[in-house]
Amino acid sequence: MSTEMNRRVVLRRRPVGAPRPDDFELIESPLPRPGEGEILCRTIYLSLDPYMRGRISGVKSYAKGVDPGDLMVGGTVSEVVESRHGGFAKGDLVAGYDGWQAYGLSKGAGMRTLDPARAPISTALGVLGMPGMTAYVGLQDIGRPKPGETVVVSAASGAVGSAVGQIAKIKGCRVVGIAGGRAKCDHVVDELGFDACVDYKAGDVFTGLSQACPNGVDVYFDNVGGEILKAVLRLVNPHARVPLCGLISQYNAAEPPPGPNWGTLLINRVLVKGFIISDHFDRLPDFLRDATAWVREGRLRYKEDVVVGLENAPAAFIGLLEGKNFGKLIVRVGED
Amino acid sequence: MSTEMNRRVVLRRRPVGAPRPDDFELIESPLPRPGEGEILCRTIYLSLDPYMRGRISGVKSYAKGVDPGDLMVGGTVSEVVESRHGGFAKGDLVAGYDGWQAYGLSKGAGMRTLDPARAPISTALGVLGMPGMTAYVGLQDIGRPKPGETVVVSAASGAVGSAVGQIAKIKGCRVVGIAGGRAKCDHVVDELGFDACVDYKAGDVFTGLSQACPNGVDVYFDNVGGEILKAVLRLVNPHARVPLCGLISQYNAAEPPPGPNWGTLLINRVLVKGFIISDHFDRLPDFLRDATAWVREGRLRYKEDVVVGLENAPAAFIGLLEGKNFGKLIVRVGED
Repeated sequence: MSTEMNRRVVLRRRPVGAPRPDDFELIESPLPRPGEGEILCRTIYLSLDPYMRGRISGVKSYAKGVDPGDLMVGGTVSEVVESRHGGFAKGDLVAGYDGWQAYGLSKGAGMRTLDPARAPISTALGVLGMPGMTAYVGLQDIGRPKPGETVVVSAASGAVGSAVGQIAKIKGCRVVGIAGGRAKCDHVVDELGFDACVDYKAGDVFTGLSQACPNGVDVYFDNVGGEILKAVLRLVNPHARVPLCGLISQYNAAEPPPGPNWGTLLINRVLVKGFIISDHFDRLPDFLRDATAWVREGRLRYKEDVVVGLENAPAAFIGLLEGKNFGKLIVRVGED
Repeated sequence: MSTEMNRRVVLRRRPVGAPRPDDFELIESPLPRPGEGEILCRTIYLSLDPYMRGRISGVKSYAKGVDPGDLMVGGTVSEVVESRHGGFAKGDLVAGYDGWQAYGLSKGAGMRTLDPARAPISTALGVLGMPGMTAYVGLQDIGRPKPGETVVVSAASGAVGSAVGQIAKIKGCRVVGIAGGRAKCDHVVDELGFDACVDYKAGDVFTGLSQACPNGVDVYFDNVGGEILKAVLRLVNPHARVPLCGLISQYNAAEPPPGPNWGTLLINRVLVKGFIISDHFDRLPDFLRDATAWVREGRLRYKEDVVVGLENAPAAFIGLLEGKNFGKLIVRVGED
């Protein structure tokens, strides 16, 4: 193994507007060897997620950014191939944050061991990982949906949105998704059990939502911002809650566009709360317990969009920001 | 008394943009007589408040609006002149909601008796009334300021803003006001003990605020919206809280202007919560206990801007929406 090389995707330059393939670079480097207390992991799956656009933007944010020349960050599912760490053994399957590379060297911080008998290991990047937990915490702790209320979620067929809608159904709510295209809308209604889904590419979102939400909107789980947010805010009920999870509509914008007027927030006493899942790791045990049970019971379903090959990660990520993926976007980096 | 006439200010037509004096009409009508269970009150003071602009707008809101021909709504301090209600006696001084008129007939709902030995009765419309309670609840229950944090409040010399800042000082915060003009800024710093005040008429608010808030902004109590809101949001710290109390900058706008971009709400996990004090009447006993004590101890000071004569209420209200008042705006309708 010592002659083997690592493959890593680094940021070549900060994108201006939509990222382009040559903003990234695939480089080879010698495979590192673990020192005392370290593990070397072979990446099987890499997660691609919208938050990564923020990390490469150069804008100060909640987490350290990726500078040109740096390895792209990302969640991974890996196999431990060499361990000098008491907590991990060779052959262990682990979920961690090794980034866009074929092998990752780490001290195991933030890594957890996966049991493939419990659930497919790729789910640790989606429905049983960060996106699923984002849905679980944002919907329940901020959205606080009550049975019979109407919950709207944008990017409804995505990793977060699909879990939000299904958990809201488990909680007894009327659930309306917003997604782009007939296939995605059909999927969340027919496969995931949403009550309705508005296709934002097919016509006026406000009109579609008005019809799908005859009793108004009590919770809007926002993944996108922009014009969709404005449309939903026209329909909020008094005391509505808006867990603000993402603003993908503007991640590629050079200048942040104006937002919605706040009049309805005042008149309807709306709660808006931005949140980042890393603030809520105390909820991980609750999430894993509930979500694993729901997955096994078939009440929390998921769809994965798997791209093969680390070299295809940049193009897949660019497509993610344009809504081209369908389901949780994962790169298969190495053999299962 | 039976030959005496009542004087009432009614809405003549809905204003488009800034209200004009002839959008209102002062009319006379026979003085009503109380039936069983009713009281007749002579208005001493009428409160003028920004929320009234919303009531006459025709836009569906949290409270019933004022239609053309209707009496203008408003908080009042009055003397009971005739009572057929077991809870009130002739001569009682009461705070209630009799509206823009010289005499009000009611069943006493929502009225409370005032003790002039406790505090000047006009304070029941300001620092010890709805505006003071708005400050108390919004700052504490939504803003949740911690000692050492920086609290910013707009319309800082107004009835709500001046109480917000002083309560935040009592809670151990650094307090920065935003107000229009040197006199208002000097007042909140020199008389009310704010740490600083930015004059939004004197220059760039963002620059002034940056200097006054070297540690960023933890709580922004928003009374105004608009460009000032945008400037403050550029300075919020992680986990900042924004009690949204008013949007006076846009109350006269024919079309609601765009709001701030929500990027900072997400990155900084900001809480925004619109609120209306009438949802929080359960806090009235706490408020009256604390605020009355603070007023008596000189820790919660107030300034009143008293206009004499019901006929001058429309012009005073129009000025209020332009920031022309200085302190809690009150109309002296009748003899004290």
